[in-house]
Amino acid sequence: MTHCPSLCVCVPKECCGQCDGISLGEAVREQHGKDESVHRCCPPDVVVFPRCVEEVSALAKVCHQHHLPIIPFGTGTGLEGGVCAVKGGVCFSLRNMDQVLDLHQEDFDVTVEPGVTRKALNAYLRDTGLWFPVDPGADASLCGMAATNASGTNAVRYGTMRENVINLEVVLANGTIMHTAGKGRRPRKTSAGYNLTNLFVGSEGHLGIITKATLRLYGIPEAMVSAVCSFPSVQDAVDSTVQILQAGVAIARIEFLDDVMIDACNRFSCLSYPVSPTLFLEFHGSEQSLKEQVNTTEDITKSNRGSDFQWAQDAETRNQLWKARHDAWYAALALRPGCKAYATDVCVPLSRLPDIIVETKKDLIENRLTGPIAGHVGDGNFHCLIVVDPKDPEELHRVHLFTERLGRGIIYKLCIFKKNQWRLDQ
Amino acid sequence: MTHCPSLCVCVPKECCGQCDGISLGEAVREQHGKDESVHRCCPPDVVVFPRCVEEVSALAKVCHQHHLPIIPFGTGTGLEGGVCAVKGGVCFSLRNMDQVLDLHQEDFDVTVEPGVTRKALNAYLRDTGLWFPVDPGADASLCGMAATNASGTNAVRYGTMRENVINLEVVLANGTIMHTAGKGRRPRKTSAGYNLTNLFVGSEGHLGIITKATLRLYGIPEAMVSAVCSFPSVQDAVDSTVQILQAGVAIARIEFLDDVMIDACNRFSCLSYPVSPTLFLEFHGSEQSLKEQVNTTEDITKSNRGSDFQWAQDAETRNQLWKARHDAWYAALALRPGCKAYATDVCVPLSRLPDIIVETKKDLIENRLTGPIAGHVGDGNFHCLIVVDPKDPEELHRVHLFTERLGRGIIYKLCIFKKNQWRLDQ
Ligand SMILES: Cc1cc2nc3c(=O)[nH]c(=O)nc-3n(C[C@H](O)[C@H](O)[C@H](O)COP(=O)(O)OP(=O)(O)OC[C@H]3O[C@@H](n4cnc5c(N)ncnc54)[C@H](O)[C@@H]3O)c2cc1C
Ligand SMILES: Cc1cc2nc3c(=O)[nH]c(=O)nc-3n(C[C@H](O)[C@H](O)[C@H](O)COP(=O)(O)OP(=O)(O)OC[C@H]3O[C@@H](n4cnc5c(N)ncnc54)[C@H](O)[C@@H]3O)c2cc1C
Repeated sequence: MTHCPSLCVCVPKECCGQCDGISLGEAVREQHGKDESVHRCCPPDVVVFPRCVEEVSALAKVCHQHHLPIIPFGTGTGLEGGVCAVKGGVCFSLRNMDQVLDLHQEDFDVTVEPGVTRKALNAYLRDTGLWFPVDPGADASLCGMAATNASGTNAVRYGTMRENVINLEVVLANGTIMHTAGKGRRPRKTSAGYNLTNLFVGSEGHLGIITKATLRLYGIPEAMVSAVCSFPSVQDAVDSTVQILQAGVAIARIEFLDDVMIDACNRFSCLSYPVSPTLFLEFHGSEQSLKEQVNTTEDITKSNRGSDFQWAQDAETRNQLWKARHDAWYAALALRPGCKAYATDVCVPLSRLPDIIVETKKDLIENRLTGPIAGHVGDGNFHCLIVVDPKDPEELHRVHLFTERLGRGIIYKLCIFKKNQWRLDQ
Repeated sequence: MTHCPSLCVCVPKECCGQCDGISLGEAVREQHGKDESVHRCCPPDVVVFPRCVEEVSALAKVCHQHHLPIIPFGTGTGLEGGVCAVKGGVCFSLRNMDQVLDLHQEDFDVTVEPGVTRKALNAYLRDTGLWFPVDPGADASLCGMAATNASGTNAVRYGTMRENVINLEVVLANGTIMHTAGKGRRPRKTSAGYNLTNLFVGSEGHLGIITKATLRLYGIPEAMVSAVCSFPSVQDAVDSTVQILQAGVAIARIEFLDDVMIDACNRFSCLSYPVSPTLFLEFHGSEQSLKEQVNTTEDITKSNRGSDFQWAQDAETRNQLWKARHDAWYAALALRPGCKAYATDVCVPLSRLPDIIVETKKDLIENRLTGPIAGHVGDGNFHCLIVVDPKDPEELHRVHLFTERLGRGIIYKLCIFKKNQWRLDQ
């Protein structure tokens, strides 16, 4: 390990800014002051690029001594403005720490540095027969995903980050280095001490900087198949979801797109699905168990007036399908060029989902808002992606009132908000 | 709600001791000063029996004002002496709060008070087609199980308490009532705020008194079948386990018993299994998927020199089999009447399990200790139940040295201890 001396000794404000370990440049600061969300860019005073945990620790100590805010930065794909330096301070960009460490194939676990993204890890694992399934769509850093407790399309089968992080190395605000489950440990099950790992998962960088994550891996399933099914109404699509889960089908993905969303995806990804409420489904397992899962599912969708399944069996067609789903955010944005998207993120008990989606759609129409809906409905979780003109204060106000209603209003008692979606600060 | 006035107003030491809400009686205090472990009885100064969260809160406030230790008591089935009042204080026995509240069948969740045990909940659920699978053997209170992050025989499929607690109502030391996931909330997935639920799960009563737990439920599987398989060596049995899991079989239970343990179970439960390393297995699923799981498993056990499976298909035979497994603790105790059992609780990465169990057995034999081994090997977790004469200081010393070696010695780097198993204070 070579040390960049400027990193460890200088107070950021006094730094020369010439080395590649630290940057005061306008462009670099701008780039690190925002993520993919609608939130206004708040650039940090300085961006540092540590290359090892010791550097992170030394820098944190300096910040601590000088009362400077610390903002960890993964890949900036967040949708909540978590990287915005609202009070200035020092952004820790972790992209230079990008090594995959300690792969234990036989124990199905791996340790990664914070610059490793989801896709980079899966590329690294390519020949091992293993994969890391949590997939929020964006090619986020795995430690950023841990920091935000990311979930995504196949959480219904494999869980969110919470269920898949085994240990974390963390640098606390004062520079202390700690390991949430003990140094070098990778227990599948533990009751020794408090569950600190899960305190840090989802803490959005508030409690410390994650400098290593030990993750669970899974065997790549023997067979996978995806399907698309259209429904005459939202209620039919969501009722099917509830019944599929209640029937105990171990479905790997079940994603809902409303008519507005599927229309946007058709346009953006050159597809031609019927413009009506739609489910994207995926099944994983042995050939035999796949047949069983698919049969049960088809019985249920048909009984809810679903169309015949459109299949995607080979890897390429499947990837195309899921790329379209994962591009939904950009497809929504493309509906109104020049506008920005404001994502809501609501999770409700499954049984309430049909009513709440139907009600939300009614509210959007009544209030003349463009708000395609896409959802990881298997977990009762849906996003309404409101596309809004940031220069139109009246429209912004209508969006604000809508989110208020969605969260606190009519459906308050039923809703569980996933992330801090209250700010609409632009 | 009626209040027992003595509960809320009097300082325990000044209480009359006559009401049924509070007890200073010797026998009651003794009974609450110990659990099922080897640890010495440390009776509290007083035992209170609150009947609602408001009483728990009022009592906690009194204790807080008078600097009295608080010890929550579930059913006293713990194996770590967690209920021992090492510094005296007030034991909160929660048995009078025994209602099942808010069953949501369609959302697969239920809320229970701290006096509800695992068996009581499953009896309550009998006609719903749902069940709560976490099963540590003992008929513990569900909130006590949350407090200790209990696992058990089917954690390999359904997870431990950690994966199955959705929300907790907790009374903090100063009497504050809080809800870890928000009052009345029951999210399947949430990233809103810190994960406080999992901070309390496994905190062994240190952080507060759990007065309500919202739990995940599961549909009762269409079919279940159990089997017993004997092996010529420990290595063969454990290798089979590793391979079964690596093959992706969604096995519901896979329990290892060494020759000493199976011999003890045979005697205690009037069985006649071959006295050699043994696996108890259980499969859950549809008829079709069961066949597939069983075939793959049999191929693997046969290739590791396993015997033919002995089947238990009907509920009664299955219950008998698992009762024998769950009685292993008492079977071990019965090996040496008058002795006590000291349980160790080790969890290691799966790939290290065969070596470590083989090494542990060698150590036990060399040091003339009776230590049958039983393990939830699917998670790399095994217990060595050392049966020791509490009146023989030399033997106690040998046990102490053994646990030291098990934990800190030869295999230190590989082991993850589950609970605080270091004390041998008798
Ligand atoms: C198109 C699109 C779709 C998405 N869909 C989903 C979805 O379905 N479900 C879902 O859950 N998410 C979704 N997301 C959001 C996704 O979860 C986040 O983008 C990702 O988890 C954040 O990772 P990152 O590395 O980009 O973190 P950043 O955006 O860089 O940071 C996010 C937050 O985490 C903190 N942070 C980052 N790295 C660290 C670290 N090493 N240590 C401590 N704190 C750190 C930051 O300070 C910030 O507060 C989506 C995003 C996009 C762009
Ligand atoms: C034969 C046998 C086999 C076992 N096998 C296993 C096993 O395989 N895996 C496993 O994990 N465990 C096992 N156990 C232990 C089991 O997990 C515990 O017995 C159980 O979880 C504790 O529940 P309880 O209600 O009896 O708690 P108690 O024994 O009463 O208390 C245990 C601890 O939790 C605290 N506590 C209890 N209730 C509350 C509450 N409401 N709020 C806050 N704190 C509370 C107590 O203060 C104490 O520290 C076994 C026990 C026995 C007797």
